[in-house]
Amino acid sequence: MNFDLVIRNGTVATASDVFKADVGVRGGRIAALGEGLAAGREEIDAAGLLVLPGGVDGHVHFDQPTGDDSVMADDFLTGTRSAAFGGTTTVLPFACQEKGKTLRAAVDDYHRRAAGKPLIDYAFHLIVTDPTEQVLGQELPALIREGYTSFKIYMTYDALKLNDRQILEVLDIARSEGAMVMMHAENADCIAWLTEKLERAGQTAPFFHGVSRPRVAEREATHRAISLAELVDVPILIVHVSGADAVEQIRWAQGRGLRIYAETCPQYLFLTADDLGGEGFEGAKCICSPPPRDAANQKVIWDGLTGGAFQVFSSDHAPFRFDGPGGKKVHGEQAPFRCVPNGIPGVETRLPLLFSEGVMKGRMELTKFVELTAANPARMYGLHPRKGTIAVGADADIALWDPSRKVTITNGILHHNVDYTPYEGIEVTGWPVVTLSRGEVICRDGTLLAEPGRGEFLPCGLPALARPKGSPAPVLPF
Amino acid sequence: MNFDLVIRNGTVATASDVFKADVGVRGGRIAALGEGLAAGREEIDAAGLLVLPGGVDGHVHFDQPTGDDSVMADDFLTGTRSAAFGGTTTVLPFACQEKGKTLRAAVDDYHRRAAGKPLIDYAFHLIVTDPTEQVLGQELPALIREGYTSFKIYMTYDALKLNDRQILEVLDIARSEGAMVMMHAENADCIAWLTEKLERAGQTAPFFHGVSRPRVAEREATHRAISLAELVDVPILIVHVSGADAVEQIRWAQGRGLRIYAETCPQYLFLTADDLGGEGFEGAKCICSPPPRDAANQKVIWDGLTGGAFQVFSSDHAPFRFDGPGGKKVHGEQAPFRCVPNGIPGVETRLPLLFSEGVMKGRMELTKFVELTAANPARMYGLHPRKGTIAVGADADIALWDPSRKVTITNGILHHNVDYTPYEGIEVTGWPVVTLSRGEVICRDGTLLAEPGRGEFLPCGLPALARPKGSPAPVLPF
Amino acid sequence: MNFDLVIRNGTVATASDVFKADVGVRGGRIAALGEGLAAGREEIDAAGLLVLPGGVDGHVHFDQPTGDDSVMADDFLTGTRSAAFGGTTTVLPFACQEKGKTLRAAVDDYHRRAAGKPLIDYAFHLIVTDPTEQVLGQELPALIREGYTSFKIYMTYDALKLNDRQILEVLDIARSEGAMVMMHAENADCIAWLTEKLERAGQTAPFFHGVSRPRVAEREATHRAISLAELVDVPILIVHVSGADAVEQIRWAQGRGLRIYAETCPQYLFLTADDLGGEGFEGAKCICSPPPRDAANQKVIWDGLTGGAFQVFSSDHAPFRFDGPGGKKVHGEQAPFRCVPNGIPGVETRLPLLFSEGVMKGRMELTKFVELTAANPARMYGLHPRKGTIAVGADADIALWDPSRKVTITNGILHHNVDYTPYEGIEVTGWPVVTLSRGEVICRDGTLLAEPGRGEFLPCGLPALARPKGSPAPVLPF
Amino acid sequence: MNFDLVIRNGTVATASDVFKADVGVRGGRIAALGEGLAAGREEIDAAGLLVLPGGVDGHVHFDQPTGDDSVMADDFLTGTRSAAFGGTTTVLPFACQEKGKTLRAAVDDYHRRAAGKPLIDYAFHLIVTDPTEQVLGQELPALIREGYTSFKIYMTYDALKLNDRQILEVLDIARSEGAMVMMHAENADCIAWLTEKLERAGQTAPFFHGVSRPRVAEREATHRAISLAELVDVPILIVHVSGADAVEQIRWAQGRGLRIYAETCPQYLFLTADDLGGEGFEGAKCICSPPPRDAANQKVIWDGLTGGAFQVFSSDHAPFRFDGPGGKKVHGEQAPFRCVPNGIPGVETRLPLLFSEGVMKGRMELTKFVELTAANPARMYGLHPRKGTIAVGADADIALWDPSRKVTITNGILHHNVDYTPYEGIEVTGWPVVTLSRGEVICRDGTLLAEPGRGEFLPCGLPALARPKGSPAPVLPF
Repeated sequence: MNFDLVIRNGTVATASDVFKADVGVRGGRIAALGEGLAAGREEIDAAGLLVLPGGVDGHVHFDQPTGDDSVMADDFLTGTRSAAFGGTTTVLPFACQEKGKTLRAAVDDYHRRAAGKPLIDYAFHLIVTDPTEQVLGQELPALIREGYTSFKIYMTYDALKLNDRQILEVLDIARSEGAMVMMHAENADCIAWLTEKLERAGQTAPFFHGVSRPRVAEREATHRAISLAELVDVPILIVHVSGADAVEQIRWAQGRGLRIYAETCPQYLFLTADDLGGEGFEGAKCICSPPPRDAANQKVIWDGLTGGAFQVFSSDHAPFRFDGPGGKKVHGEQAPFRCVPNGIPGVETRLPLLFSEGVMKGRMELTKFVELTAANPARMYGLHPRKGTIAVGADADIALWDPSRKVTITNGILHHNVDYTPYEGIEVTGWPVVTLSRGEVICRDGTLLAEPGRGEFLPCGLPALARPKGSPAPVLPF
Repeated sequence: MNFDLVIRNGTVATASDVFKADVGVRGGRIAALGEGLAAGREEIDAAGLLVLPGGVDGHVHFDQPTGDDSVMADDFLTGTRSAAFGGTTTVLPFACQEKGKTLRAAVDDYHRRAAGKPLIDYAFHLIVTDPTEQVLGQELPALIREGYTSFKIYMTYDALKLNDRQILEVLDIARSEGAMVMMHAENADCIAWLTEKLERAGQTAPFFHGVSRPRVAEREATHRAISLAELVDVPILIVHVSGADAVEQIRWAQGRGLRIYAETCPQYLFLTADDLGGEGFEGAKCICSPPPRDAANQKVIWDGLTGGAFQVFSSDHAPFRFDGPGGKKVHGEQAPFRCVPNGIPGVETRLPLLFSEGVMKGRMELTKFVELTAANPARMYGLHPRKGTIAVGADADIALWDPSRKVTITNGILHHNVDYTPYEGIEVTGWPVVTLSRGEVICRDGTLLAEPGRGEFLPCGLPALARPKGSPAPVLPF
Repeated sequence: MNFDLVIRNGTVATASDVFKADVGVRGGRIAALGEGLAAGREEIDAAGLLVLPGGVDGHVHFDQPTGDDSVMADDFLTGTRSAAFGGTTTVLPFACQEKGKTLRAAVDDYHRRAAGKPLIDYAFHLIVTDPTEQVLGQELPALIREGYTSFKIYMTYDALKLNDRQILEVLDIARSEGAMVMMHAENADCIAWLTEKLERAGQTAPFFHGVSRPRVAEREATHRAISLAELVDVPILIVHVSGADAVEQIRWAQGRGLRIYAETCPQYLFLTADDLGGEGFEGAKCICSPPPRDAANQKVIWDGLTGGAFQVFSSDHAPFRFDGPGGKKVHGEQAPFRCVPNGIPGVETRLPLLFSEGVMKGRMELTKFVELTAANPARMYGLHPRKGTIAVGADADIALWDPSRKVTITNGILHHNVDYTPYEGIEVTGWPVVTLSRGEVICRDGTLLAEPGRGEFLPCGLPALARPKGSPAPVLPF
Repeated sequence: MNFDLVIRNGTVATASDVFKADVGVRGGRIAALGEGLAAGREEIDAAGLLVLPGGVDGHVHFDQPTGDDSVMADDFLTGTRSAAFGGTTTVLPFACQEKGKTLRAAVDDYHRRAAGKPLIDYAFHLIVTDPTEQVLGQELPALIREGYTSFKIYMTYDALKLNDRQILEVLDIARSEGAMVMMHAENADCIAWLTEKLERAGQTAPFFHGVSRPRVAEREATHRAISLAELVDVPILIVHVSGADAVEQIRWAQGRGLRIYAETCPQYLFLTADDLGGEGFEGAKCICSPPPRDAANQKVIWDGLTGGAFQVFSSDHAPFRFDGPGGKKVHGEQAPFRCVPNGIPGVETRLPLLFSEGVMKGRMELTKFVELTAANPARMYGLHPRKGTIAVGADADIALWDPSRKVTITNGILHHNVDYTPYEGIEVTGWPVVTLSRGEVICRDGTLLAEPGRGEFLPCGLPALARPKGSPAPVLPF
């Protein structure tokens, strides 16, 4: 056997195992794992390093039209660059249907936006905002078959939200086609009602963004999402779960045997409602939805990650600059929170934060880290086993981590196009020092080595987890 | 690279991944996984077969002194033979302390019983029945350091049970030493009280064994076990969970962030209370504790297996012949259920039953099957990564499964020394056709190819899951 | 003291006590309770009888415009006649706002419909269907102050339902004014989606009415109602709860300290989904919403009544004839269930059914019966202590019950204007033999003794249970 | 009608109603309630006052032998004196079986201790500590029939506790005889294990009493008590519940339809664990079991009182002097908490504390106050309707409350024989100014007007709440 590349002497981890092995790469794929593999054309000495599957970030927003005067700061180049430096090798941003237009138009537009830019591989989630008969009956099934096998629906935001009837119809298609539905679960009416109350009371500073989206609004929508999915008998994934109340509903559903999956994000482990307060307009940097809660809720989120309530840990990277056009200050520093672009960056910091506080602090096994950040997102969206693991036949998407490297996160060391990070000043232990995509070293020690556009679009398979219950698993996929 | 053996063209599965690869074995260990590996001295063509890690059965009873006139029918030879034919390559039977004697004596005696017999590798759990100051302060810590890192305690059975105070003290040692405690959770007093009531009423047929051990008695003890573990702040594993009530307590505890692990067994998926009834004494064949429940409880057990409540699926193989000395009829066919040897065989059928009804019927992924039956028991008891997975460096303990082979289970095809199987007549799809232990083919197509005594004793490491919460995981174990 | 009437030698029961006493009535009110009261101008010998407060039926529909071609069979005369014969002396029907019109118009119209007819006293609930700014800001507060202190809102039915935002706004008014909100909790979109599915499949017989309104649709709406009330911090009453899933939500909320009250009805104790099946169109007689469930759910409803989940037991009398204009067959016997008038009669049978199966069968104390059927509805709607109890100063609204009388319920013995009863053929033990309203005997042994129009309209006070939490109770109301 | 006494112009409250009425008393019983009753031989003007049923304190310890060198400071004279001044007119202390002796001996001894002393009426609970065959088979049934229809069993304290088997047997007798069982639910082994740990660490100050009895030990025993009662199918009353964990179990059981009743006490509303800390030995004044928790748990206890989890509010008056023989300092001020007499006084402050913080602060209705403190304890122990209410035929046990009187609680104004009160310095609004027992004024404005020994022993009936489920209630008790 001859290899294009051998990564030698490292400690490999998958969602199941940690073992010492050389990794032989050929044609961009992992051709062998073994002791003392034959020499490759290239060699990397990974002694003292962890050889992890590159992260799969199942929830990012790049260059997504917002429908208003806000502008996302990261496109497919800067977004994937930031991801790659953070040890992530696959991203799934969203092709968002514009109301009144087709899903196909959104997909086509999004491919145009991506063209020539990505540094790593990517797939698209769809966002269904206008489930017309045409969309449900023809477009969506066709797109699923073409590899767009997951889509998100919103229970809040005027421009995006579906009503219960529409949700049922979208879920019904997901069930018959075997697709995975992601749900943003917050009750729109509760938020609107509170927002108007707050505005009438002059309580419009960034801090009140959190007040306007209380845990009960998230809990209600979570219970409703579960109920609608139960009625249709289809699995769903509740995205970006923020706190104890929603987790209680999710666990309750899981305990009743329902296939309710859940995702959480770094902001619910590392930020609190207080971060939306602070001096002047600073809190706007942490405006995202659902908002961060408090320390007690962070504890519940950690327990949910280690104890099985959550399957996926994503960034929900939604990049807006603090200063500059289309950013947090697009309507000035006195703007009410309702007018502040909603979302925070995090595609690059996702993995180091969890690795440091999770693995290095003994909260979770290394295998669990890989499962939450790479293997499970790949499974959830039909990219497994090509992505999310280190196994023979998988793409050689690999991050080499130095588990002893201490890094203080500051925006200066990050590679997104946003002018701040919500995690400024946090010191972490462990950092990805080399990133490979399909066997190609794309980042090494802070240097970018890849060309824009080298990332490939990934048509997704039907996710096994969304298979109708009781239908046989394909035990011999090969 | 030269290999002693190459298993070629199979589909490999771990708890994380399913992939097509050749498996290269050298010195009894897996030396490489790859595409087109170099030829081995021996070769096995696994085309069309699944290449699974050999099962780890974390709960078996072989040749265990019972303290009365019942006699276990399987010793370390017949027990491991039956295991091997069922695709299992590691077993963990119990060295049971006799009250008034030392733990060391039990371990020594058990090594003598094993000597010269095992066909596959094995480790010992301890059973602590007499936690004297000497046992707690010296013996137990010493034995843990020697590789006996898990022990079982009983909340029922006069000869075995500990009171709450003793349980607390044993848990406290487990916490300080990092060992794993398995708990048999049934309330002894409830069972005794009901048994006497039933006996006074002449209700002594095998069926009433089930009546005497109601779900509430298991639930109470489960809640108590959880509470004692919570007080001590130590993880525990609740073994052989039978139904919905105990699962509710376990999920409740897991949802509160406690490290409560749980095991279930085939009898709670495939048998019901009705199987203890039937003609004459037939029901005695299914007497085990806790007893099987009903279809609704089976459903909850399935949901717990797929949904994360359970981490481990074991056999609780406790072999007594129906006829013959020391067997179910040791006190005659009119004997009250209290006098019937308690336990059923299952080490050979454990994997085929779960594979067929779980994987082939689409209830669980193949990776979940491997996780529950091999990877997790190995992790739980400090045998990972040597056992329970297919990874570079692991022992080449492998079962080749033909996923399309249909087999009707009858006792005639099994290899234990028991004269019946509770699963007589069940047809399964999928069967282990070749079993390898440390690279040696020990069973092939129904033929035993190994010599007694080849199995090695395995000193166990400290299980990662029992590590004090918050203590750093060893991220670079190599 | 001289009395207009003395009821002598009976056994009096309140929600708290059962005691032997004479009841002295003067000016329509209870003037004294005592042993050996002085003679009254009239006397009733109640030896061997129970002297209970007349029932308060907090949920009836009389002569309510339906907005379609269905017609309610009972008006204020026949409805109150039926109530009176069933031992009920106060009713609260609904003045239902027509969308696009004012609440005041509904109230005025409803007073016109009542004029000259009622045999017993009555108050009005409002139904808010169109909460315009005018309605919320002016009409509703004004009406509350005039004595219309409770109103119902619907989460289903196109003609009636409010969206979440409207619900929040109505709840907010209830909070600031101290009114009580009743909620019909079923998810409209789930029902519509299922109904269309069923219709497309030709499953339109009465039985499928139940299928179209599954427990999950009720559970979801119940959780949502609770959440909206929690957000506004106002108590609500969930009406006509049908089964275990909704009860689980209600108990969960009550356990968290929320003031969530709940009502159930005879149909959820005495009917099941099977009663909607049967020959031909017979099942239409039991079409009501939510639909009856099954025996296991009936058990949960009983437990909720005795164990505190429910505060109120009402009839939800919604009278449509089986034959005749505007009745169940208004669109013929082949009409899809969606077109069948929705509701069943029960104002006369409510008390005998619960008395017989509850009190006489030992499920509940007599005091609990009085609490659920008289005292609590009076408290819930601001009619206490004038109605719902036997106490000095209260109206002499009294039913004398013969606890040993056995009666087989048939429609022939009932006094409503409906041509069937869903409870045909049920034998009960215990029956109200004399009914008094404000000291006047209005029914005796099956004979009506009162004149239409004698019933008075009752302006309601603010219910104590809806008082903002922590605001002092008026401990000295007199 | 001629009355011995008329209480005129007051506002009467029962567990159901609040109404203005004169109360006519004849022969020690309430003969009439009415407007403008005829003159009595004596008259009390209750204008501006509340006329409440005298409190029934279902949980007090008077002159109870402790089995060690501690001595209870209150006997039947000082204890009932304190009760009477606090508005309580019935007490139920405990006749405690000494291990190795009979129940009958305890009852006889306790009658001797009571002789000539009580100022108010009293009944006895039994404490079963030694359930021999003789006790279970003969003594207990006989005593139940003689009017000792409730008994307490302990799950902790070496001198008192029963094991699970004994508990089952006692519950079984309660079931067959229709008696009510009160359970002290704390896990003895957990407490002993923690206590020894604390002592080894030198942590023996009063504060550590609380640490030694954590919420998990109470929760475990509560779940176990529920399970044992569920197995036997008998109602039980969990006494002196201290916090959220036990309440969660109780609500869970109630929600499943089990008849699990619960009691709480002032110490769990007004004290916290911090009150066991403080300077020197001061914390010993608040040592009681279970110990007070924290503010969050107080909130849960309040919610449980108003929301139905609790049926009974008692004092658990267990009087030990701070200074003086047999008191808190019996082993000196350095004594480890284990040696400090366990219990606090509260029979006099129970009602004013709950009235002020509950009723006057708007947390509960006045009817709920009467229910929890008088009517329900009377019902629970077979004293209803003679005690606990104001109804015709009931004993004229009445407290006149001035709802506007402000009083600062200090030990100087109390009438027990204890030299401190845990509630020193708390200001309350509302105070009982006159107390009547069977129509006799025994306290008025701080003056005692009754003779020792006037209180009568009350044989108790079988409590309706303990009636076997489904057995008919006696609807016509007269």
